[in-house]
Amino acid sequence: MFYHIKELQYESKPSKPDPVYAKKLQEILGGQFGEISVAMQYLFQGFNSRADAKYRDLLLDVGTEELAHIEMLATLIARLLDNAPVKQQEAAYKSNPALAAVMGGMNPQHAIVSGLGAQAADSVGYPWTSRYIISSGNLLADFRANLNAESQGRLQAVRLYEISDDPGVKDTLSFLIARDTAHQNQWIAAIAELEAREKDIVVPTTFPRELQKQAVAYDLYNLSRGEESSQGRWAKGPSMDGRANFRYVSNPVPYGPKPFLVPAPVYIHNTMPPMFK
Amino acid sequence: MFYHIKELQYESKPSKPDPVYAKKLQEILGGQFGEISVAMQYLFQGFNSRADAKYRDLLLDVGTEELAHIEMLATLIARLLDNAPVKQQEAAYKSNPALAAVMGGMNPQHAIVSGLGAQAADSVGYPWTSRYIISSGNLLADFRANLNAESQGRLQAVRLYEISDDPGVKDTLSFLIARDTAHQNQWIAAIAELEAREKDIVVPTTFPRELQKQAVAYDLYNLSRGEESSQGRWAKGPSMDGRANFRYVSNPVPYGPKPFLVPAPVYIHNTMPPMFK
Amino acid sequence: MFYHIKELQYESKPSKPDPVYAKKLQEILGGQFGEISVAMQYLFQGFNSRADAKYRDLLLDVGTEELAHIEMLATLIARLLDNAPVKQQEAAYKSNPALAAVMGGMNPQHAIVSGLGAQAADSVGYPWTSRYIISSGNLLADFRANLNAESQGRLQAVRLYEISDDPGVKDTLSFLIARDTAHQNQWIAAIAELEAREKDIVVPTTFPRELQKQAVAYDLYNLSRGEESSQGRWAKGPSMDGRANFRYVSNPVPYGPKPFLVPAPVYIHNTMPPMFK
Amino acid sequence: MFYHIKELQYESKPSKPDPVYAKKLQEILGGQFGEISVAMQYLFQGFNSRADAKYRDLLLDVGTEELAHIEMLATLIARLLDNAPVKQQEAAYKSNPALAAVMGGMNPQHAIVSGLGAQAADSVGYPWTSRYIISSGNLLADFRANLNAESQGRLQAVRLYEISDDPGVKDTLSFLIARDTAHQNQWIAAIAELEAREKDIVVPTTFPRELQKQAVAYDLYNLSRGEESSQGRWAKGPSMDGRANFRYVSNPVPYGPKPFLVPAPVYIHNTMPPMFK
Amino acid sequence: MFYHIKELQYESKPSKPDPVYAKKLQEILGGQFGEISVAMQYLFQGFNSRADAKYRDLLLDVGTEELAHIEMLATLIARLLDNAPVKQQEAAYKSNPALAAVMGGMNPQHAIVSGLGAQAADSVGYPWTSRYIISSGNLLADFRANLNAESQGRLQAVRLYEISDDPGVKDTLSFLIARDTAHQNQWIAAIAELEAREKDIVVPTTFPRELQKQAVAYDLYNLSRGEESSQGRWAKGPSMDGRANFRYVSNPVPYGPKPFLVPAPVYIHNTMPPMFK
Amino acid sequence: MFYHIKELQYESKPSKPDPVYAKKLQEILGGQFGEISVAMQYLFQGFNSRADAKYRDLLLDVGTEELAHIEMLATLIARLLDNAPVKQQEAAYKSNPALAAVMGGMNPQHAIVSGLGAQAADSVGYPWTSRYIISSGNLLADFRANLNAESQGRLQAVRLYEISDDPGVKDTLSFLIARDTAHQNQWIAAIAELEAREKDIVVPTTFPRELQKQAVAYDLYNLSRGEESSQGRWAKGPSMDGRANFRYVSNPVPYGPKPFLVPAPVYIHNTMPPMFK
Repeated sequence: MFYHIKELQYESKPSKPDPVYAKKLQEILGGQFGEISVAMQYLFQGFNSRADAKYRDLLLDVGTEELAHIEMLATLIARLLDNAPVKQQEAAYKSNPALAAVMGGMNPQHAIVSGLGAQAADSVGYPWTSRYIISSGNLLADFRANLNAESQGRLQAVRLYEISDDPGVKDTLSFLIARDTAHQNQWIAAIAELEAREKDIVVPTTFPRELQKQAVAYDLYNLSRGEESSQGRWAKGPSMDGRANFRYVSNPVPYGPKPFLVPAPVYIHNTMPPMFK
Repeated sequence: MFYHIKELQYESKPSKPDPVYAKKLQEILGGQFGEISVAMQYLFQGFNSRADAKYRDLLLDVGTEELAHIEMLATLIARLLDNAPVKQQEAAYKSNPALAAVMGGMNPQHAIVSGLGAQAADSVGYPWTSRYIISSGNLLADFRANLNAESQGRLQAVRLYEISDDPGVKDTLSFLIARDTAHQNQWIAAIAELEAREKDIVVPTTFPRELQKQAVAYDLYNLSRGEESSQGRWAKGPSMDGRANFRYVSNPVPYGPKPFLVPAPVYIHNTMPPMFK
Repeated sequence: MFYHIKELQYESKPSKPDPVYAKKLQEILGGQFGEISVAMQYLFQGFNSRADAKYRDLLLDVGTEELAHIEMLATLIARLLDNAPVKQQEAAYKSNPALAAVMGGMNPQHAIVSGLGAQAADSVGYPWTSRYIISSGNLLADFRANLNAESQGRLQAVRLYEISDDPGVKDTLSFLIARDTAHQNQWIAAIAELEAREKDIVVPTTFPRELQKQAVAYDLYNLSRGEESSQGRWAKGPSMDGRANFRYVSNPVPYGPKPFLVPAPVYIHNTMPPMFK
Repeated sequence: MFYHIKELQYESKPSKPDPVYAKKLQEILGGQFGEISVAMQYLFQGFNSRADAKYRDLLLDVGTEELAHIEMLATLIARLLDNAPVKQQEAAYKSNPALAAVMGGMNPQHAIVSGLGAQAADSVGYPWTSRYIISSGNLLADFRANLNAESQGRLQAVRLYEISDDPGVKDTLSFLIARDTAHQNQWIAAIAELEAREKDIVVPTTFPRELQKQAVAYDLYNLSRGEESSQGRWAKGPSMDGRANFRYVSNPVPYGPKPFLVPAPVYIHNTMPPMFK
Repeated sequence: MFYHIKELQYESKPSKPDPVYAKKLQEILGGQFGEISVAMQYLFQGFNSRADAKYRDLLLDVGTEELAHIEMLATLIARLLDNAPVKQQEAAYKSNPALAAVMGGMNPQHAIVSGLGAQAADSVGYPWTSRYIISSGNLLADFRANLNAESQGRLQAVRLYEISDDPGVKDTLSFLIARDTAHQNQWIAAIAELEAREKDIVVPTTFPRELQKQAVAYDLYNLSRGEESSQGRWAKGPSMDGRANFRYVSNPVPYGPKPFLVPAPVYIHNTMPPMFK
Repeated sequence: MFYHIKELQYESKPSKPDPVYAKKLQEILGGQFGEISVAMQYLFQGFNSRADAKYRDLLLDVGTEELAHIEMLATLIARLLDNAPVKQQEAAYKSNPALAAVMGGMNPQHAIVSGLGAQAADSVGYPWTSRYIISSGNLLADFRANLNAESQGRLQAVRLYEISDDPGVKDTLSFLIARDTAHQNQWIAAIAELEAREKDIVVPTTFPRELQKQAVAYDLYNLSRGEESSQGRWAKGPSMDGRANFRYVSNPVPYGPKPFLVPAPVYIHNTMPPMFK
């Protein structure tokens, strides 16, 4: 169960309106790696957790914080939309081309649909979808998903920081970027702890290795001509799980035969090969 | 540019048809972490790569292999659909309830739409979408995405292996599971190499740390009541990036004020607060 | 069965082309509350109707009118796209920045994909999806959906009216806005009639009230700190259905315990808590 | 900013597992009118609110409660998935057709993807999308959206209650159904208060009526042959907004001419009419 | 503008209810090539048409007919849903496995969401989306799209006919299949007429051939090892447009060089190659 | 199984960067008829093929070539994104409106999400979805789908060629346009060959004609008032399949009765007609 307080986790106030930047900022609110994604991802992982209480608690702690970040960014976007020049008439295009560029560059739904409010969508207006999130029940897998989400998310926030010159926006982003730093560190720590506990790094660690084709479990197949890829840690020396050596296969060949599919029954009305006609 | 040979990378032949299992197998072909996702993800990362040739080559090597996995799974699914009892009439429901269960459990599109062929969709029939893939241009971020994809993918393949009792299906899956082992090892190796080269683990490593709010960059906020989350590596001791110590904040409070949004212009026709009426 | 006549229900002719406005106008053609949504929503409600003939007839009357509105807006958009400056070359960006703003602000698919024709998509190019529409079989519920659709739709049409200065566009919109007025009135009338007939206002009215937890059926929980929400009609006095009094709960507490989920079977390969290892 | 406590708002414990019902229950968690929809809809309306503090507070109160409902349903679904017979082998289809029916009827992603956890998707596995939610900035419009959501949502919960015979499930649903009763009452109260304050019922009330085509603002066009629709409150007597009388038009005719579109420029490569060749 | 009459274009009455078949029948109502797709596709092509009046009229004639097919199928599906055993309790699974199979095999939304009514979705519950339709403004291109739609649609209707044993359903389908025959013939006729008029078959016919790379305009590249593909009309002899001869290239090689992308600016925070560090 | 070589099939190098054009070019990479669509469509048709080897080989030849086109366009887009003015500050809007227009007109995800790389999305940023592709198992149907795809695709490429003035871009497009010419010719040849072999043109040709309603199989119903549509080859003379004559029906009437749906069971909580209350 949740409680809300009216205060923002951190101030979210631009120095001046900027509807084109508001459109861009939607990316880290409602995009693939935006705050809605991480909030929902961590909360569902927590709600579904069948493992130790401390992992569940960690997931709910961080998921609950991300709800506050949704609130911060929604507020920031609404304020960036103040004074959007949506009512400027076409005449403006000629007399004030800079204004025209703003009018053409903002998201039209910010005016027509959401009435100068934030949307649960990304920077091209694509709505947030739950296919972004993952909650598999295997925490080592899921913490890697979380680390990825925080890495992509911080990268996007940094890019948005770099292209802004508004001190208020930059201040809010510097807070979110710092929190992403904390979260990357936390998921890395949680991953390290789980890998140590499970004594393996290949997810899922509980599947008996002898049930997989061991002979191909450490090969790198050179399927794009040119052997530059042989020059990395991944192509030689002991494998990262310490169970074998990497093997670079310069001229990979197929292990299987050509496939042949039998014709479908007549009532499916597929094209039949001549001998069946 | 690509070339194709007719042979499969590995044999994909079930011992007998099973259209209900065919539906489930679609998950690792056209699902969020299926073979289409990894093929397209690695190829786009490779095509877009502005970094060292060896990374580009690695991405194109592995992405090209994943194309072969799409082919293997499509073949396996088509064969599992042979003899699907789609033409059984309603009378069958009463005389043969086991058959009826198969008829109800298979994906109807496998008969009506794809004519007993595989689809680029997941196990509930949801079509593959490119919002699954990520190619950010930052390889440390993207290799973490790749490690996540291979972890979730191997987990799903293992679950499918466990619920099958068809030796042919299990043989094909044991190959794919082994390749996922190889790829997890490879991305872990590539991540380690990049982290060493960039001398940091927080993506992006190139953003000056002093531009973020340092004071909150290592905090864990206890926002879900109960302090179980304090009992992990992520809550105490030196941070994983070695730059500070984790700090556990038992009673987190907001740093910001209550937000207030100014009313929208009249022509937006939002609800106005009373004093503006 | 349907018949079509070539005349438009109302003239749809802009005074001059304006491809940027054409992009915006897509919102009320193919957006969440656009004409496609209401046409399909009313027609499916009508086709599926198992209630009185007069409701079915009303739904088919209004749904059929909305088909005419699709036609009107498609025509208006096609005409706004005349003379779109899509062939202007890059040189134009420097010599004529106002023109450049138009080129950047229009929907590129209007030129590349639909050949200066309207699309069944919204103002950010997101395609119309049938998940927008609702047809539940419960007409009181569905008429509320219809009232909502006409309210959001008229709001958006009004915003588009306000930001246009083209007399032809405004004339067409003034017709559509008037029709939305008619339809809001109609759905409000139909709701009132059904509420009177069903002698209740809580949908579905046919579910025995004693089967729900009566004790919590009129509470407002103050879950966002601060009691401003106690100052409304919804927080005190008799409930709107006349069966009880609203109750404002200043300090809501949980009724349930902490949840605990048992571990999954081993073959699911979830993370197991330590005691199960 | 948000806080979480571990206790559930209300107990969510089925009497026994039932993976087929778990699939169905997803509808009111992640469907169009599920708990994710109402939580996100009310929170975004609240975050974006530029109107009176009491409306903002109401929205945040109720939105925060809906977060607790997401948690309750996720927990209930996870428990219904315990002991799902996903590992049963094909032999089971013949010896135990009832079991086979369960295996075919459950959502395969509940086993393969989410590891016996709930998903942010509906009962056919379609992922939640933010296009479900509306936050327009006009509260009268939005409260109608909210009333619709609670009406559809309670209807679906009631249907799920009716088709269950599990006392635990029915107990949880009886709580949620009661809360939907409270919320329908609240939104009806809020709508009544706003309509009184704005002295009109046609959204948006702030658009000058004389700018719309008054002549058609109260007509019902008989576009589906047969005049059953004339027998309702919507077809005669004073309009609900009290400004005119409803008018039933038995033989509606077009007001506009046949449209004609000029040919596109040659470089668009549309089909040209013969005279232009 | 449209008019509706209550009569169906053709009777749509199953001999008995069958909710599992109702789920399958959704494919040709709301699937990629269902009736909604063709109705919307032809109507948008007609509304957008800038060519001869006879094409516009043809499109509106056929599009208007498809609206009647939507109505027929919605009616048929609603009737197939009568007596759906959704209220059967879990006990039924054991005592009546055939019934259980029906309960597991039907679309749960048909009961919970649409109240035994049809949906605008396909046989796996995926909602109809306007990305299915095409209206390019080039009628030769679009008539090919129409022919494809009628071909796929008739194929699916035939498959549904084959797997039904209900005389009423088969009667309705035999009507729709016949209309698809008519429409395939019509689009083939219209294509032939346009190809004759435009004196070419390569769309768009109006693009000067000399602006394309003529040298590669008739080649077939043997990129999948094995030369079976050389044995078709497409690989030898005069090309279908009569302007050249097909050429089969047994060993295709690249015409272009290896690509190299320059590094991104530092503020994008991509991975940089070593020499730029 | 696939192999990759680093060389491009054809050079893809713009003369200068142009991020607005890069956005537009996404249409033929990741749009409905872009290179991803045709690559996946042909490969899945090939993988699923149960017909003659030569068709399978043809499909895999052409599908493999389309993978090379994905690579070419991704490279071209990445190069067009060089020097995108994303870091220009707001001040630039006033001092340099032409630059502002570029900033507003480019796809923000090209900077924030993909780091100046191509995306698997279309020109409005909508992600590629596998619902674009069709693989039915009936090759005559599918080759018509392929011909449509190549027709729409070439049309879009031509439009993009026309609106560019960059010699490098035009050179690459002239190659792709020529390949579309080859592919249109090939699919037309394959269709002709199959129609000759199957001795019919109505898909599926294998369904017994006497099972459809022959009486309506050649009618054109004049459902849009005005008889312009009678003036085409489709309305008179022998049908294209040579089995009957086209028939133009000036005043089409319904063949079916008015539908009536019986009320739903009480526990569905639909609105019931009065006599059932």
